[in-house]
Amino acid sequence: MIHNPISLQATCEVVVRFKEADPMGVVWHGHYIQYFEDGREAFSKKYDIGYAQASQHGYTLPIVKISCDYKKPLRYGDIALVEATYLESGAAKIDFQYKIFKASDRTLVATGHSTQVFVDQAGALQLLTPAFALQWKKNLGLI
Amino acid sequence: MIHNPISLQATCEVVVRFKEADPMGVVWHGHYIQYFEDGREAFSKKYDIGYAQASQHGYTLPIVKISCDYKKPLRYGDIALVEATYLESGAAKIDFQYKIFKASDRTLVATGHSTQVFVDQAGALQLLTPAFALQWKKNLGLI
Amino acid sequence: MIHNPISLQATCEVVVRFKEADPMGVVWHGHYIQYFEDGREAFSKKYDIGYAQASQHGYTLPIVKISCDYKKPLRYGDIALVEATYLESGAAKIDFQYKIFKASDRTLVATGHSTQVFVDQAGALQLLTPAFALQWKKNLGLI
Amino acid sequence: MIHNPISLQATCEVVVRFKEADPMGVVWHGHYIQYFEDGREAFSKKYDIGYAQASQHGYTLPIVKISCDYKKPLRYGDIALVEATYLESGAAKIDFQYKIFKASDRTLVATGHSTQVFVDQAGALQLLTPAFALQWKKNLGLI
Repeated sequence: MIHNPISLQATCEVVVRFKEADPMGVVWHGHYIQYFEDGREAFSKKYDIGYAQASQHGYTLPIVKISCDYKKPLRYGDIALVEATYLESGAAKIDFQYKIFKASDRTLVATGHSTQVFVDQAGALQLLTPAFALQWKKNLGLI
Repeated sequence: MIHNPISLQATCEVVVRFKEADPMGVVWHGHYIQYFEDGREAFSKKYDIGYAQASQHGYTLPIVKISCDYKKPLRYGDIALVEATYLESGAAKIDFQYKIFKASDRTLVATGHSTQVFVDQAGALQLLTPAFALQWKKNLGLI
Repeated sequence: MIHNPISLQATCEVVVRFKEADPMGVVWHGHYIQYFEDGREAFSKKYDIGYAQASQHGYTLPIVKISCDYKKPLRYGDIALVEATYLESGAAKIDFQYKIFKASDRTLVATGHSTQVFVDQAGALQLLTPAFALQWKKNLGLI
Repeated sequence: MIHNPISLQATCEVVVRFKEADPMGVVWHGHYIQYFEDGREAFSKKYDIGYAQASQHGYTLPIVKISCDYKKPLRYGDIALVEATYLESGAAKIDFQYKIFKASDRTLVATGHSTQVFVDQAGALQLLTPAFALQWKKNLGLI
């Protein structure tokens, strides 16, 4: 039996705000971390998993690792296309890869990666994937 | 018996961050609202009243009105002196006046005003000043 | 001859970001200043006037006064409807009134006002409305 | 002749602002990127190298890579100690390692890394370290 690899991905548009550009005229690098989160939000809505869903089951999903590689600048008025791709690993964590494109010419402007873990209401890191997340993965055919 | 008017005032320094300046090279106007809050924080520490203290007594202090008049620009690297002055009115609210100066030459760069109210844990606006705030005012000789 | 009053207005949707809500769970008050700017941006696109257009003619449009009245909280995930209405005064300035509604139930959550002036490349405040802005007003039947 | 390794390091304090904490009550992860920049700023002042100095010589220092590992949360009112350590590589880039501690108990709350490159006024990436930066390294005994 052959499983085709499943790629879960969501994309959103983010309009670069005036205040997000710095005195050099380009988006300050820290704001890309927000754009990544915007991508996760789009993913969350599309696949019904995220901060809000975890919270309903008594968990938070803190980011424990994030990275960004910057390729090209974005400027005020640009529209960024943020693509968030879920990476299944089997471990008790949620990994996303990100690509940000400039909408006008589809230039790749940045790539990135994030890792989130499951923490319960007592603040304890979960070494096993919580039931609600396992169910979510089953529903989507990931496991 | 004559009471001299009491002016409660606190000042803090805020270093303008690179990302707070916009493509025009000057601090984006919305960030001054943060500088005002920095002034309130300095006041809070100096006089022991603020978000944290209200929270201990079961209240929040939401801002219900804010305004800012911009006189001169601030730039990346400038140090802003934020002066927060408490305005006693007798009503169940907390009013502050703000002045922001550029530290290097004491230019007045902005003035402002904020109004906060007392809201209890049930979300109800308090029409009377809560006991903890009355006590605070008494301690300071305001009433 | 009777002129009907002309009301120039633009509206945009702003999705409240997770990081815009504070430890009280509600949008931090300073972020509304950004939402107002989002409203001005929508206006700028609809009527072809704004930062970018002014810049093309050698002017900046600094905010010299802003105010906000907060009525109800916004929370993470809420969609804010920002309505920016241009107020014609005849003076060398640009005034906007703002209303922010919660999209889900059309509750009015905030109102506000901003004033911008015209500054030339030498940094001089313009006491007369620059030609490009007069032309814009004529085109729209404002004068 | 033996050279002892030279470690250039600067530290600064950052007071966590109310609006930097999210509805979970902890600092939103993206703000750590700002704290890293605050560390670079402290380094810049201590060793006279940074955005402003590069700009005087006709260069910008864009961030091309950043990463952060989150260990423990920071909360409103916490004081973060940000330690920025310069990593000499010989290549035409500027690398920093970061450690963020909670001041109250010296807990390590995050680590990180950034890479900046030299870009000239024409926007060209510099493959060789510009003269002003070489001079700076010589002055500090790095090369």
